[in-house]
Amino acid sequence: MKVEIWSDIACPWCYVGKARFEKALDAFPHRDQVEVVHRSFELDPGRAKGDIQPVIRMLTKKYGMSEAQAQAGEENLGAQAAAEGLEYRTRDRDHGNTFDMHRLLHFAKEQGRQDELIQILYKANFAEERSVFSEGEERLVELAVAAGLEAEGARKVLADPAAYADEVRADEREAAQLGANGVPFFVLDRKFGVSGAQPAEVFTQALTQAWGERSPLQLIDQGDADACGPDGCAVPQH
Amino acid sequence: MKVEIWSDIACPWCYVGKARFEKALDAFPHRDQVEVVHRSFELDPGRAKGDIQPVIRMLTKKYGMSEAQAQAGEENLGAQAAAEGLEYRTRDRDHGNTFDMHRLLHFAKEQGRQDELIQILYKANFAEERSVFSEGEERLVELAVAAGLEAEGARKVLADPAAYADEVRADEREAAQLGANGVPFFVLDRKFGVSGAQPAEVFTQALTQAWGERSPLQLIDQGDADACGPDGCAVPQH
Repeated sequence: MKVEIWSDIACPWCYVGKARFEKALDAFPHRDQVEVVHRSFELDPGRAKGDIQPVIRMLTKKYGMSEAQAQAGEENLGAQAAAEGLEYRTRDRDHGNTFDMHRLLHFAKEQGRQDELIQILYKANFAEERSVFSEGEERLVELAVAAGLEAEGARKVLADPAAYADEVRADEREAAQLGANGVPFFVLDRKFGVSGAQPAEVFTQALTQAWGERSPLQLIDQGDADACGPDGCAVPQH
Repeated sequence: MKVEIWSDIACPWCYVGKARFEKALDAFPHRDQVEVVHRSFELDPGRAKGDIQPVIRMLTKKYGMSEAQAQAGEENLGAQAAAEGLEYRTRDRDHGNTFDMHRLLHFAKEQGRQDELIQILYKANFAEERSVFSEGEERLVELAVAAGLEAEGARKVLADPAAYADEVRADEREAAQLGANGVPFFVLDRKFGVSGAQPAEVFTQALTQAWGERSPLQLIDQGDADACGPDGCAVPQH
């Protein structure tokens, strides 16, 4: 069974939702047969790469919140994160463009390190004092290395703005096609969707239902197949 | 709608089947909304990289055919290919390990050139006098360039045996999970399967049926979602 999770590193509910999903997955009897793939979604795709702002200022400017509202939202997120055992800095975080991190996550996927990297990026963004936005590419290289990637490979990806850019955009197009207009967005076997950081119980229900409704492919054919397999290429007598 | 095609460059029915599928796809009214992805399947994964044989000798040794049977099979394939407008050399082709070509196809996928490359590899293997197996890596680099890839990038992939190797193996595992034991194997939206180089009419039927049964995701949730979207991150009052 395959679970695809659309999310953004700059999305606090994605950070919290991943932990809730994993709580459900860890207890799921068929967890060894569940493949998890992370897909890209930028909450703020129009933001220029160098345009970095304190989170509270971004919230007041972009969404018209008062400072008190924005801070209350952060406090709520901090409490929700803490309830999942996650660290969350409710003050002095910053916000910026996440495109390069998504490109790096696609590179990490190829190396079998995607889940490690997204977890490290979340932690760096939400729990650590150092910024993931303002220190330049070497900061991301360092985090990639912590996820088990080679520094040189990560550096090359970051230096080439076209590397994995198509993959990021393809993920975003697919999210739109699937009807996701916010994240986190979980898709199970392309059949069931869970929108948002729902309680772990909802993920358990979704996993159980999707598992129960797994279905083999319906084969469409017309008699003998002309195919090649372990016993050679069939040579039907037409 | 997504169509995944498992195939091998060394599989003549894959070459013919792709043409039959494309005949159906070209006439399909929703063809612009069909995404085609090629996936890896090696018919002869145990063959060492340098172990190259004439096709007829491989058929007699590996499958215990007589030379006359093997040659008759090739003549039949030549006629089937011709009926699809494809060139096919029924004599003096060779056979070898295709792992590197599959790795290169995954690289090409990233660059949006996968379909171009697989078509060029098929033509080179089945229709051209020069071998795709015996001339070394520069032959594959040349074909990659013909498909629109950069020589240097292709050369790097070929020089590093680990590059995209996991992707090839993951495709092969997935084929087995889906019940494919031969190729070509077509999977539509992970719901319908078509095994073998079926007539174009079967592909038309499969495309039509899969299109008609496209279904939106069933959303599983429990009230308000904690999510971030274009209007910010919802802050429910818990």
